[in-house]
Amino acid sequence: MIIVLRPDATTKQIDYIIKRVKKLGLKPHVSRGTERTIIGLIGPEDVLRVTPLEVFPGVEKVMPVLKPYKLVSRDFKKEDSVIKLDGGIKIGTKRIIVMAGPCAVEKKDLLLDIARKVKDAGATVLRGGAFKPRTSPYSFQGLGEKGLKYLQEVGKKVGLATITEVMDPRDVGLVAKYADILQIGARNMQNFNLLKEVGQTKKPVVLKRGMSSTIKEWFMSAEYILSEGNFDVILCERGIRTFEDMVRNTLDVTAIPLVKQLSHLPIIVDPSHATGKWGLVAPVSKAAVAAGADGLLIEVHTKPEEALSDGAQSLMPQNFQELMQQLRVISNAIGRSM
Amino acid sequence: MIIVLRPDATTKQIDYIIKRVKKLGLKPHVSRGTERTIIGLIGPEDVLRVTPLEVFPGVEKVMPVLKPYKLVSRDFKKEDSVIKLDGGIKIGTKRIIVMAGPCAVEKKDLLLDIARKVKDAGATVLRGGAFKPRTSPYSFQGLGEKGLKYLQEVGKKVGLATITEVMDPRDVGLVAKYADILQIGARNMQNFNLLKEVGQTKKPVVLKRGMSSTIKEWFMSAEYILSEGNFDVILCERGIRTFEDMVRNTLDVTAIPLVKQLSHLPIIVDPSHATGKWGLVAPVSKAAVAAGADGLLIEVHTKPEEALSDGAQSLMPQNFQELMQQLRVISNAIGRSM
Amino acid sequence: MIIVLRPDATTKQIDYIIKRVKKLGLKPHVSRGTERTIIGLIGPEDVLRVTPLEVFPGVEKVMPVLKPYKLVSRDFKKEDSVIKLDGGIKIGTKRIIVMAGPCAVEKKDLLLDIARKVKDAGATVLRGGAFKPRTSPYSFQGLGEKGLKYLQEVGKKVGLATITEVMDPRDVGLVAKYADILQIGARNMQNFNLLKEVGQTKKPVVLKRGMSSTIKEWFMSAEYILSEGNFDVILCERGIRTFEDMVRNTLDVTAIPLVKQLSHLPIIVDPSHATGKWGLVAPVSKAAVAAGADGLLIEVHTKPEEALSDGAQSLMPQNFQELMQQLRVISNAIGRSM
Amino acid sequence: MIIVLRPDATTKQIDYIIKRVKKLGLKPHVSRGTERTIIGLIGPEDVLRVTPLEVFPGVEKVMPVLKPYKLVSRDFKKEDSVIKLDGGIKIGTKRIIVMAGPCAVEKKDLLLDIARKVKDAGATVLRGGAFKPRTSPYSFQGLGEKGLKYLQEVGKKVGLATITEVMDPRDVGLVAKYADILQIGARNMQNFNLLKEVGQTKKPVVLKRGMSSTIKEWFMSAEYILSEGNFDVILCERGIRTFEDMVRNTLDVTAIPLVKQLSHLPIIVDPSHATGKWGLVAPVSKAAVAAGADGLLIEVHTKPEEALSDGAQSLMPQNFQELMQQLRVISNAIGRSM
Repeated sequence: MIIVLRPDATTKQIDYIIKRVKKLGLKPHVSRGTERTIIGLIGPEDVLRVTPLEVFPGVEKVMPVLKPYKLVSRDFKKEDSVIKLDGGIKIGTKRIIVMAGPCAVEKKDLLLDIARKVKDAGATVLRGGAFKPRTSPYSFQGLGEKGLKYLQEVGKKVGLATITEVMDPRDVGLVAKYADILQIGARNMQNFNLLKEVGQTKKPVVLKRGMSSTIKEWFMSAEYILSEGNFDVILCERGIRTFEDMVRNTLDVTAIPLVKQLSHLPIIVDPSHATGKWGLVAPVSKAAVAAGADGLLIEVHTKPEEALSDGAQSLMPQNFQELMQQLRVISNAIGRSM
Repeated sequence: MIIVLRPDATTKQIDYIIKRVKKLGLKPHVSRGTERTIIGLIGPEDVLRVTPLEVFPGVEKVMPVLKPYKLVSRDFKKEDSVIKLDGGIKIGTKRIIVMAGPCAVEKKDLLLDIARKVKDAGATVLRGGAFKPRTSPYSFQGLGEKGLKYLQEVGKKVGLATITEVMDPRDVGLVAKYADILQIGARNMQNFNLLKEVGQTKKPVVLKRGMSSTIKEWFMSAEYILSEGNFDVILCERGIRTFEDMVRNTLDVTAIPLVKQLSHLPIIVDPSHATGKWGLVAPVSKAAVAAGADGLLIEVHTKPEEALSDGAQSLMPQNFQELMQQLRVISNAIGRSM
Repeated sequence: MIIVLRPDATTKQIDYIIKRVKKLGLKPHVSRGTERTIIGLIGPEDVLRVTPLEVFPGVEKVMPVLKPYKLVSRDFKKEDSVIKLDGGIKIGTKRIIVMAGPCAVEKKDLLLDIARKVKDAGATVLRGGAFKPRTSPYSFQGLGEKGLKYLQEVGKKVGLATITEVMDPRDVGLVAKYADILQIGARNMQNFNLLKEVGQTKKPVVLKRGMSSTIKEWFMSAEYILSEGNFDVILCERGIRTFEDMVRNTLDVTAIPLVKQLSHLPIIVDPSHATGKWGLVAPVSKAAVAAGADGLLIEVHTKPEEALSDGAQSLMPQNFQELMQQLRVISNAIGRSM
Repeated sequence: MIIVLRPDATTKQIDYIIKRVKKLGLKPHVSRGTERTIIGLIGPEDVLRVTPLEVFPGVEKVMPVLKPYKLVSRDFKKEDSVIKLDGGIKIGTKRIIVMAGPCAVEKKDLLLDIARKVKDAGATVLRGGAFKPRTSPYSFQGLGEKGLKYLQEVGKKVGLATITEVMDPRDVGLVAKYADILQIGARNMQNFNLLKEVGQTKKPVVLKRGMSSTIKEWFMSAEYILSEGNFDVILCERGIRTFEDMVRNTLDVTAIPLVKQLSHLPIIVDPSHATGKWGLVAPVSKAAVAAGADGLLIEVHTKPEEALSDGAQSLMPQNFQELMQQLRVISNAIGRSM
């Protein structure tokens, strides 16, 4: 932590600051420049997070030196983390994993049909929401436990692992009973009690980036899960909110290599929610893979016109199959497989 | 709802769309322009929200005519809503209400001291967090039920109503037992299960705007609470996330008159969280009152240096008192009182 | 400037950095912390701006200590700058100045009519564009020199100073011949050649904030003008681009006190362009004055329906007059006049 | 254009609107819905752009049906535009074009060295700024005409076409004399007089997206150039401003397929300015190519440490060469060449 003093800071003010930081167990290091005096603090920066140094008289600004996240960082763990699912599926290796399926679980037959088609095309995980966070109280809110049962049943029958969203700390146990991967949605990225709850399960967690969260905040939310003992976290970029209004959100493709540099956790991309338009899913998926994503989470629906949620962004099975073929070629071109 | 067709839309495509919308109980109205054909749909627009018209072949774009929120709208209720608390306090009248206190409840003595000072200065509601949503898992998370007890006890002793945040649907009953107003924080604005839960209580709710939520989304979240039967919702603008990095968030002062035009609900402003700097709280509070806010939610602490949360943005009691005097003069100048 | 080294930085890398910064005339100050080593640099930080320290091997990040702006800063000049116009008008004193008029100069009679009405209501400067920066090449682009002549003529006849926009470095001389204040529009805030050109005139300049410029960048653009010798710069906040789409831009009301704290230059607010809706101009103007603005720039038109530019945001003369009365009361309440 | 009326609009107000739009040559089409009455207007929408229908009494909102850009649109020209340079280089075909070189032209020898290396690696156009738009008046502003001469000389010697930025309408003739492609920088995307000036040359223009411009505004700026008669416009995505602060800007990778869908103009990507960090240039370049970009504009410098501008984002020649090899493989994988 570095404290930059105001040009008019008095000796008395400086002495007071020094006394206070010493009491916190830190070693202050005063350096008088031509225009500003600064105080460098040596020792555990964490103790300072609860002391608002900005309000001390004479202080102009405070600059942290260390990153606030620990367990998530590559400084903590140098090698890529690999998340293992039952059935031998691994996320975070050279093999790119595709999770696909409808936005919401609606009918069992429909889900079975979609599941077979995405499996045939090369997907290894089946997605489908049973609890749906909807902007409007009047929209379809999901089938609840019935949806979870359908998802599990279909997943087993077809031979796909399953992922589904959990929105409420009270439902974590229930969802964990049925699904192989728990998904935390963008709107819940800072629902800290929910994060703690999934951190106490043994289930892998896909943590979506909040639509206006910085990468640092995203890491801090992952830190909540890891700090509860669950290290099986997969980050998912799904677009951020910007001023551009032609698409639902702006996919932050640069986040992929940035996350890879700063963290050991795998990162996947959700091109369907990012763009909100099925016609953009294919080019954006290719970009994500080329940029180094470890996987994709794609919406596929056999009858987008009749989907109860987000039909506009769902691929038809045939388009999905074509995309998978193209992605396989790109994966090979960059030394990975699919 | 208006459907704009692509210039190359075929008669067959148009007929199919017409057939489908008729089946939904809507009356289509085709209008052929020089460059585009459009279809206006007459009837309840809501049935269309689950039908993704954008994916129908031949469709260029779909433009909703109606607002998605109902109960929150001035179309639904013309007169300003007034929220009544025990002790005769009313929010949403000519009298501007100030809620003040520390960010977090820490010690009882400290809280009592702050409460007396804000009461003397003219505040009518005491704020203080017992459950704190913190970005880092390593930060102070609040005292929990003990904090709620302190808050209630101090409020009663000093003669102030109380407001505190609830973060978890499981805690709604507990918090409602102790506090006069439930606060939903910015990060939970779209925690829909929490919204439903507070919607089922009889307690007034302060609903903070999500830091990157549009006004329309904010209204939709309020709609969740109203649609559960609780109409005592107070909106709270607390700054939105922008590219400007000199302050924590950018207070959207224009939201105040906009909300007043579009909704009957009262709106208050939190200048402390919006700016993150105590030196900006006074001018921003004055702006909020001049723009028509019905109240303010201000952080006050007797020892900001030692506050366990957000000390940098807390006013000292003396600054708060001076601010209250200035606000009283401005309130009178615009025909209101404080 | 402070250099934070990577945890794996080698002694050789550190020595190389030290050698290089010494060659630039700076005194390095190495401080070894528990988790990171940092190098503080004492001496003129400016020489470092052309040396990309981030690319030196072993460097994690570089943190500047000093502000990049000089002449604009309160560190450079403690007292508020006051800009003087002919006719005794001063900007930056206790008296709040209102500049009003149509968006664009259209017809002379119309301009005269508007000018008389805004003068009667208390405005002291007449606004009106002769060169209009329009998003579309097919929109009305302004009357050019004829518009400048009308503006000057009407200003003299009615007794108002004049302000108009200059968009092109080639037009600075021409515009300076006719107008009392030169306006740099938001889209030209970083048109650096234009800034240099107006910096070489003796005319006061209103510098609008770019719609997605930080306050620091705005100061740097003002610095361009001051560094050419023209210190008569008035900053104008006119709303920034955010994700909120109910209004054209989001007025950053907090920028007003922030600018006042950091700079000696006066700041005015343009509520018309910020909101884009005449119904929001009055509350937002009141907020700006309450927050400490030194003036306002308001669009007034007698026939908004027929305005060739931005009619939707223009006040009718009667609304303007009512607003002026209310602003006068608020000005008095905060110890200023109008 | 569609006019949505307020629920309380009177017959007199509606009749007045109908009268006015008829006078403008449009055919109104009134449609009374259950909750709102709307008026559809048939005829040339352009005449309405100067009539602010929003201010007419009784109007709630106005929704345009048509796109404001014409010449830029795929509706105007179905086939991809191909821009031809001397020496047989074509931009907008299956072959992806790479433009590379230093941010600024500094010394001739250095430029020659870089030029040879980027040519060897497969670049076909040499970039280098002679006029530099710098945030600070105290930063290096470029060599001016001397820089243009160096660029031309080196380009000819090595056999590369050249691209350089023009910032000032007064310099367009000068820059056009020396360079093969004129570049309009992000900060000048809405410098309309500059756009008109380059629109009157016969030189190809690379138009960078403003850092907070929507795609629609970008198209409107291109429209300025096309409407002056110059159809040789290449769009360049270079990152937009968002709240994320780990990188300089957020590359909008989705803009690539969107532009391809809506316009016939080629689109290239500048990964160096978008990210601001050389370590991110390679993954982001691969993403851009995979998403369908027609080219890349990459900064390469032999001594980034000593670059007078933007050294932190420049690739070393060896990294550039490796990247080019990888890009060639990806290009082939998607059916293109490099």
